Amino acid sequence: MNITAAYTDLYQLTMSQVYFGTKPDGKAVFDYYFRNNPFNSGYSIFAGLEDILDFLETLEFTASDMAYLEQHGFKKDFLDYLKNFRFQGTIYSCKEGDVVFPNRPILQVEANIIEAQIIETLLLNILNFQTLIATKASRIRYSAKNAILLDMGLRRAHATGGYYASRAAAIGGFDSTSNVKAAEDYNMPSSGTMAHSFIQSYEDELEAFRDFARWRPKNCVLLVDTYNTLRSGLPNAITVAKEMESRGEQLLGVRLDSGDLSYLSKKTRKILDEANLEYVKIVASNQLDEYVIKSLKEQGASIDIFGVGTNLVTGKPDAALDGVYKLSEFNGEPRIKLSENIIKVSLPFKKQVYRMLDKNGMFYGADAIAGFTEENVTNMEHPFDSRKSLNLDRFTHEPLLEKVMENGKRINSPRTVSEIAAYSKSRLEKLPEEYKRFQNPHIYKIGLSTQLKLERDKLVQKHRF
Amino acid sequence: MNITAAYTDLYQLTMSQVYFGTKPDGKAVFDYYFRNNPFNSGYSIFAGLEDILDFLETLEFTASDMAYLEQHGFKKDFLDYLKNFRFQGTIYSCKEGDVVFPNRPILQVEANIIEAQIIETLLLNILNFQTLIATKASRIRYSAKNAILLDMGLRRAHATGGYYASRAAAIGGFDSTSNVKAAEDYNMPSSGTMAHSFIQSYEDELEAFRDFARWRPKNCVLLVDTYNTLRSGLPNAITVAKEMESRGEQLLGVRLDSGDLSYLSKKTRKILDEANLEYVKIVASNQLDEYVIKSLKEQGASIDIFGVGTNLVTGKPDAALDGVYKLSEFNGEPRIKLSENIIKVSLPFKKQVYRMLDKNGMFYGADAIAGFTEENVTNMEHPFDSRKSLNLDRFTHEPLLEKVMENGKRINSPRTVSEIAAYSKSRLEKLPEEYKRFQNPHIYKIGLSTQLKLERDKLVQKHRF
Repeated sequence: MNITAAYTDLYQLTMSQVYFGTKPDGKAVFDYYFRNNPFNSGYSIFAGLEDILDFLETLEFTASDMAYLEQHGFKKDFLDYLKNFRFQGTIYSCKEGDVVFPNRPILQVEANIIEAQIIETLLLNILNFQTLIATKASRIRYSAKNAILLDMGLRRAHATGGYYASRAAAIGGFDSTSNVKAAEDYNMPSSGTMAHSFIQSYEDELEAFRDFARWRPKNCVLLVDTYNTLRSGLPNAITVAKEMESRGEQLLGVRLDSGDLSYLSKKTRKILDEANLEYVKIVASNQLDEYVIKSLKEQGASIDIFGVGTNLVTGKPDAALDGVYKLSEFNGEPRIKLSENIIKVSLPFKKQVYRMLDKNGMFYGADAIAGFTEENVTNMEHPFDSRKSLNLDRFTHEPLLEKVMENGKRINSPRTVSEIAAYSKSRLEKLPEEYKRFQNPHIYKIGLSTQLKLERDKLVQKHRF
Repeated sequence: MNITAAYTDLYQLTMSQVYFGTKPDGKAVFDYYFRNNPFNSGYSIFAGLEDILDFLETLEFTASDMAYLEQHGFKKDFLDYLKNFRFQGTIYSCKEGDVVFPNRPILQVEANIIEAQIIETLLLNILNFQTLIATKASRIRYSAKNAILLDMGLRRAHATGGYYASRAAAIGGFDSTSNVKAAEDYNMPSSGTMAHSFIQSYEDELEAFRDFARWRPKNCVLLVDTYNTLRSGLPNAITVAKEMESRGEQLLGVRLDSGDLSYLSKKTRKILDEANLEYVKIVASNQLDEYVIKSLKEQGASIDIFGVGTNLVTGKPDAALDGVYKLSEFNGEPRIKLSENIIKVSLPFKKQVYRMLDKNGMFYGADAIAGFTEENVTNMEHPFDSRKSLNLDRFTHEPLLEKVMENGKRINSPRTVSEIAAYSKSRLEKLPEEYKRFQNPHIYKIGLSTQLKLERDKLVQKHRF
């Protein structure tokens, strides 16, 4: 399946048929944002932008898409429009890899309303998922400290979603992936050595290890738990490590994939060290996530490399980021969506977001949302509690939304995954520790400029009869 | 991204390099099975088979794949082998859509070991995910009884995994999807009408409804909660329904997307009926799953059509099926993987699975696993508890694994999604109710033929020194 313009919800097209008939030149601004950090995290890592820009530059309806749509009651002139559809809008966005927070625009689309609707589903689909996984990866990185992290989740990923999961994992701080296709296309390091089936294909575990070391001596990691880790796998691995030494080679590591990883890793380290194999690394896998890794670290487990699969690539337990795409301006007029739930009221107007930096360049813990052209944002108001306000004069104001696409074309050349990952790391370093802890992280403040709040409240009043 | 043979874990290739050097003609049998039904369900729905057969018929390494692999230390003759790689194995499988259970083979691959390893990741990736989602869909169908079910999850799906989610949802019992691309490629019904943004693009909700009804009178569903469901949305929808009547058209429905769906739907039904709009249907959406729908039904909510999104397509809360792929024979010899955990011990030998049918053709509640060529399977033993045994003489034995691919080619022409969904429904009808309830469903029995259990236990003894 290739992503084409038909990678959308049908209602985008039924609405577009009506726009086409009634207001074909309508100009819209849509905000992309989410309402809650996943995993009760204190922050999220924004990911997926470069992919979206790639898709938007070339998105069109194929002949097969058109043949399908012709059966769905659309009018001839609208079908002709779709046949020639290209996204020609403008996009403002945070940098991919940035640390982001709920309830403030992360990306804004300014486009003909038909174009803006047709791309909505794809945009949400890619950004919601990659932001979810980059955030999960970032939390695992936080637990694992300086250990090496391998993504090995493809087999239980959500079909081809696993391809994007591997990309997002790298942005969130993973070092390498088992996913060959993703590594190839995104120029990421890949890794992998052996499964239980390899050892089972031999009558004898030692013979299996020997053959493997002979044929793949570089980055050789032996899986030691097929029959019994301490009584069979590890002694056989040591035998092979010594044979490799005699050939001037080095065994890279042994992998533990079952049992108590804390106990087994400490025992394994001791046995390896006693055999003068201090250089042999210990790789651990088996249903790991940020909490299990944190606990292993606290118990002093001796693990150099963690392989993380299902919990990473499926973003368990949340499995989804609740990102939305809301109309904030139409033909230059502000738009709002009300809700019984006050925090679900959308923010009108085209906007800019400013991050407050303290005198050391660290994030103070506040992003202020203002009108796009508003100058001198000196105060930030709580969105709903009129008693709460913050004076912003003492901070450096960093604007976060920058134009990344104009008339359907990128402004800058694409950034690589490794560049994005490095940027993400540098941004996380500016975020104080209290936002990173797992238990009740400190809440990062999001506020509105005094003017934006005033205008928003006027619009709410108007629509509440 | 297109699926090619590089859609695999790197370790499949490092292992294959060694096989290529040491036992290039090794013949393997691998079992695909899972260990636990997702969602604490009493059964699962097998899905993804036709997709896998499609992929396997054409899978190869592209020039770009080869260029990437050439940098990874593989030997020249192995790279030449990969360049000409095609899957030429044989596959035995349950029928797609069948009701399946943990810890018994669902599919068996019999192939050259290199081919069998290279396809492992793709096979697990597609089958695990679609089986997860088809099972979730089946549970939602069970709750929803005869209501119409719409999949509308693409925006929060795991990127392109959402494409396969829509297919699996149809197999599990959904009637229609918002996902245009999936509907187009898999020939499934699609549906969708309007989002809040459509109404927001107008100054006035009534005008928005009017325009929509004028341009899309067929299957017109008006979204009534943008400002206020009962005070604004519903009265405006009734006005438009009456205008449609005067043009000889009918409003299909109104959609509730927030608030208390039980209360609002009953109130809405009453108001519509009082306006003589008994034919107008009520569509409900907003974070639905099988439990919320069950509760709505129990409260007598008046909902004709349920739109289900995130919880369906992400398979929340489990987010993954724990399917595995284990070597059971190599060059004609049985293979086993042991484990500290007795239920994780794999089953050796190429096998057949028989379902026990009672005299009415209903599932009795037992699948017996036997050697592939074993005849007269008269008893089924508990896999680990030697006191438990079941005589099978009184049942009809239905063999479940049938050859679906030989020498890398399909045996039969592909079945469509609607055929698979109909088959799945017919199979579920044979499964007694006690396996379908949500709370502590009855446990379906899986056993081994007396002979298979004997041989398995011998092999366990042999490997336990």
